[in-house]
Amino acid sequence: MIARMNRREFIALAGAGAVSLGISGCAAPNRTGAENKPANKPNFVVIFCDDLGYGDLGVYGHPTIRTPNIDAMAAQGQKWTNFYAAASVCTPSRAGLLTGRLPIRSGMCSSSRRVLFPDSAGGLPETEVTIAQALKPRGYATGCIGKWHLGHLPQYLPTRRGFDSYFGIPYSNDMKPTPLMQDEKTIEEPADQTTLTKRYTENAIAFIEKNKKKPFFLYFAHTFPHVPLFASKDFKGKSIRGIYGDAVEELDWSVGQILETLRRRNLAENTLVLFTSDNGPWLTQHLNGGSAGLLREGKGCTFDGGMREPFIAWWPGRIEPGQTIRDMGSTLDFLPTILSLAGAQLPTQNVLDGLDISPALLGTGPSPRKVMFFYRGAKLYAVRKGWYKAHYITKPAYGPGNEKEHDPPALYHLGRDPSEQYNVADKHSDIIADIRKEVALHLANLTPGKDQLAQRIPKKK
Amino acid sequence: MIARMNRREFIALAGAGAVSLGISGCAAPNRTGAENKPANKPNFVVIFCDDLGYGDLGVYGHPTIRTPNIDAMAAQGQKWTNFYAAASVCTPSRAGLLTGRLPIRSGMCSSSRRVLFPDSAGGLPETEVTIAQALKPRGYATGCIGKWHLGHLPQYLPTRRGFDSYFGIPYSNDMKPTPLMQDEKTIEEPADQTTLTKRYTENAIAFIEKNKKKPFFLYFAHTFPHVPLFASKDFKGKSIRGIYGDAVEELDWSVGQILETLRRRNLAENTLVLFTSDNGPWLTQHLNGGSAGLLREGKGCTFDGGMREPFIAWWPGRIEPGQTIRDMGSTLDFLPTILSLAGAQLPTQNVLDGLDISPALLGTGPSPRKVMFFYRGAKLYAVRKGWYKAHYITKPAYGPGNEKEHDPPALYHLGRDPSEQYNVADKHSDIIADIRKEVALHLANLTPGKDQLAQRIPKKK
Repeated sequence: MIARMNRREFIALAGAGAVSLGISGCAAPNRTGAENKPANKPNFVVIFCDDLGYGDLGVYGHPTIRTPNIDAMAAQGQKWTNFYAAASVCTPSRAGLLTGRLPIRSGMCSSSRRVLFPDSAGGLPETEVTIAQALKPRGYATGCIGKWHLGHLPQYLPTRRGFDSYFGIPYSNDMKPTPLMQDEKTIEEPADQTTLTKRYTENAIAFIEKNKKKPFFLYFAHTFPHVPLFASKDFKGKSIRGIYGDAVEELDWSVGQILETLRRRNLAENTLVLFTSDNGPWLTQHLNGGSAGLLREGKGCTFDGGMREPFIAWWPGRIEPGQTIRDMGSTLDFLPTILSLAGAQLPTQNVLDGLDISPALLGTGPSPRKVMFFYRGAKLYAVRKGWYKAHYITKPAYGPGNEKEHDPPALYHLGRDPSEQYNVADKHSDIIADIRKEVALHLANLTPGKDQLAQRIPKKK
Repeated sequence: MIARMNRREFIALAGAGAVSLGISGCAAPNRTGAENKPANKPNFVVIFCDDLGYGDLGVYGHPTIRTPNIDAMAAQGQKWTNFYAAASVCTPSRAGLLTGRLPIRSGMCSSSRRVLFPDSAGGLPETEVTIAQALKPRGYATGCIGKWHLGHLPQYLPTRRGFDSYFGIPYSNDMKPTPLMQDEKTIEEPADQTTLTKRYTENAIAFIEKNKKKPFFLYFAHTFPHVPLFASKDFKGKSIRGIYGDAVEELDWSVGQILETLRRRNLAENTLVLFTSDNGPWLTQHLNGGSAGLLREGKGCTFDGGMREPFIAWWPGRIEPGQTIRDMGSTLDFLPTILSLAGAQLPTQNVLDGLDISPALLGTGPSPRKVMFFYRGAKLYAVRKGWYKAHYITKPAYGPGNEKEHDPPALYHLGRDPSEQYNVADKHSDIIADIRKEVALHLANLTPGKDQLAQRIPKKK
C-alpha cells in the first residue's frame, strides 16, 4: 500500500480550497445514483487524447499550458502517475484499450507498418470483442466520437463493433483524404479540422442528452493534439505555448463541457469518467509535439515517455477526491474494469491482458496490475514488473537507428529513476531472473494474431 | 492578464474536493487577522529548500515523490510556474533573497569561487540590509533556522544581520566540519544530519509558539535535499524515490508541521508563507540530485533548470486558493514584498532589484516583474524579458567545459519552448534589440560590490 495516499494526505488535499463555493460535483455522495438509473449500471465516458505527453497538463507539471478543467477533474478524483497506454502508437494502442488485449493478440501491431493507413485493408478482427459490444447485452447505449483508427473499410467501422453511432475521422488527421463520418457515411471531405474539437464536443453532449435515461458508454477519442494542429477561433493564438497549447487548451475546455453536462443532468454521481491518451508526445514534430516531462523519449518507442500517460479518473461520490495513485494501471484494464462495474460478462473466447482496477478506483484495494509488457510492432521490447523495467531491445522512436539488443536486459528502477538513466542490471540478477520468468509465462500463453497492418487495398487499374 | 487564472478556472479549482471536511485553514476570511495582532503587521515565514528541482514535487509533476502537504499548500494558495531564484548556486542565491539585490551588487558572487567555503573570510557586507534588519523597526521578532551560507565569521552570522536568534549550519552540509550552531555558538560538531530536518522543524515551531503574540519573520532555510542526503528514521527508506525522495518527503512533513502550527495557534490568516528553493537540482549527483522536470539543465547554470523553482504562496483568507500564476517573479522580490505588506521602510541607501509582487499575491494586479537577469559568478550570462530569454554566454553547469559566447544571443521563447531547445534569434532581431537596451540600462546602473568570495582566512602557521 506504499503507493496509496495516506489518510492525512487525503484530508489535506480534500480540504484544499474548500471555501464555501457551491459546486454540484462536490455535493454529498449519493450511492444510489441518479434517480432514473439503476446504480448497478453506471455510465462510462472514456476521453482519449492523441499524442498528449505525460508533462503537458497543469496538474502533471506543465508551466504554461492552462488546463483548469482537467486539473479540477484530478482534484475531484484520482491522478495516476504510473499508467500506461497499451502501445506507443495509435492503432495498437486503441485496439488494446477497446479489447483489453495486447495488440499482438489481435494482429493490430506488426513488423511491416506501425499503424493503419488509408490504403490499409485490415482492421480490428471480428473475433475481438470491444467494450461496446460487451456492454450491449446489459442495455447500454454506446457512442463513438472522434478518431477510430481500427479499420476504415465498412466492416471495421465503429458501428459494426458495438457502437450505436459514430461521428469522427476514421484514422489520423495527417492522412489523406481525412473524411469526417457520421455513422458509416462521409459527410465532409476533407474535414474542417479547425472546428473538430468543438463539433466532437457538441456531439458528445448531444449523445449524453439523448441517452440520459439509459446507461451509456461514450468512447470520445479526440483527434488532437496529433499533428497537424488546429484550434477553433476561441482558442487559436490564445495559449502561451503556441498552437500545441491552443489545441490542448481546447481539449481542456471540452473536458469541462462534458463534466458540466454530467453535473447539469444530475448524472455525475452515476458516471465514471476516464481521461488519458493513446501514446506519448510526438517529439520529432519539435514544438508541435508535446512533452513527456521528466520521462525518457516519446511516441513510438518503449521508453516510458512513449507509453506512460496522464490518467485521471472521476466519479463524484464514488472516487475519493484529491488522490494521487502511484499503483500501475493501463488502458488494457479499461475493458475488465468497466465490465465489472457494469455487471457485464467478460468475453470468454479470448485471453485477456487487462485487469479489473476498480478496487484502486473505489478505494477498496490496490491495483492488481504488477506487470506491463511493452511491445513495438510485433516484438516484445521491454517488461515492467513492480518498479523495475527491463529493456530487452531499444530503438530510437523514429528514423534510421537500428534495434539494439540487451543481454542481460537494461534494467531501470522507475521509482528511483523515472527518467530511465541508470542501468542497474549488474546489481539485480535476481530481478532479471524473475522478469525472465514473467516473459516465459507470457510468451507461452501468446498466440499472435494475423497481421492486420500489412494488408492493403488493391490499387485500381 | 493572460497569465492570471480566469474566474471559471478559479471556481473549478476552488471547488475541487470540497467535500464537507472541516479544515480550519479554509474558514471564512477574517481580514482583521488574529485577535492579538495588528492586521497591518502580518507574520512571514519563508521556507527555503536547498537544490530542490522544478520537477521534484507532486504538484509540479513528480510521479513518485509524495508531497501531500506541499501539494495541499499549493491547492490552498498559489503555485507559480515562472519564478526564479536570484542565482544558480547557494551563496549568491541567499544573498539575493535576503537583500532584494542581485548578488553582483553585494559582491556575493565572484569569478574566483562560486560560493563561500569554510576557509572563506568574506560574507554579506555590512552595507547590505536584510529583510530581518528592515523589519526590526516595525517590532518584528526575527528568527533564522537552517543553512546560512552568507559568512560564518562572527560578524557575518544571522544574529548580526537582524535575526534575534539562529539555529543551523552556517554553510553547506558537504563542507567540513559542519558545525550546528545556536545563535553564535557551536553546539554540535559535526552535526548529526540524520535528525536535522526534524530539529530544524522543532525549532521553527518553538519560534512560532514563542512569538505568537508579536509579529514575526521566520527565515527557515533547510539543509536538504542538498547532498549528502539524510533523513530521520521515520522517513529513511520510506520513499519510492530513494534517499533523495526520503529527504524531500521529510521536508514535506516539515511544511505540514509549520502550517499546522499556524492553524492551531489561529495565526494562519495573519501569516504569509512562501515556499521555494535556492537553485535547481544538482544533476551531477545522479540519483542523489533532483529533477528540473522539462526544464533544461540544473544547478550551477543559467538555463532555466538552474534557476526556475517551485514557488508556493499561502495565506488563508488573503490569497485566493487554487491559483496557478504564470507571471514572472523572483526571490529578489521577497524583500520589497514583505516590507510593503509589513508597512516597513525600504532601505534607501542601496539600489534594489526586487519588486513588490504583493498585487499578484493578493489578486489586485499582475506581477510587476518583466525582466530577470541571470548571472553566473560576476558575469551576466542571460536575460529574460517577457517570454523571451536571451543567452549571451552559455557554459555547462560543472566540469571542464568552456564558456561559449553568442552574438547575437541565443533566443528562446520560454512560453512555447520551456525546455530552451529552439533558438529563434534569427527571427526576432527586434526582441534582441529590446533586450540589448535592458542590458545597457542595467549595466549603466550597476556598481559591482567588492568580491566577498575570494577572501580567505589566513592559514595558521
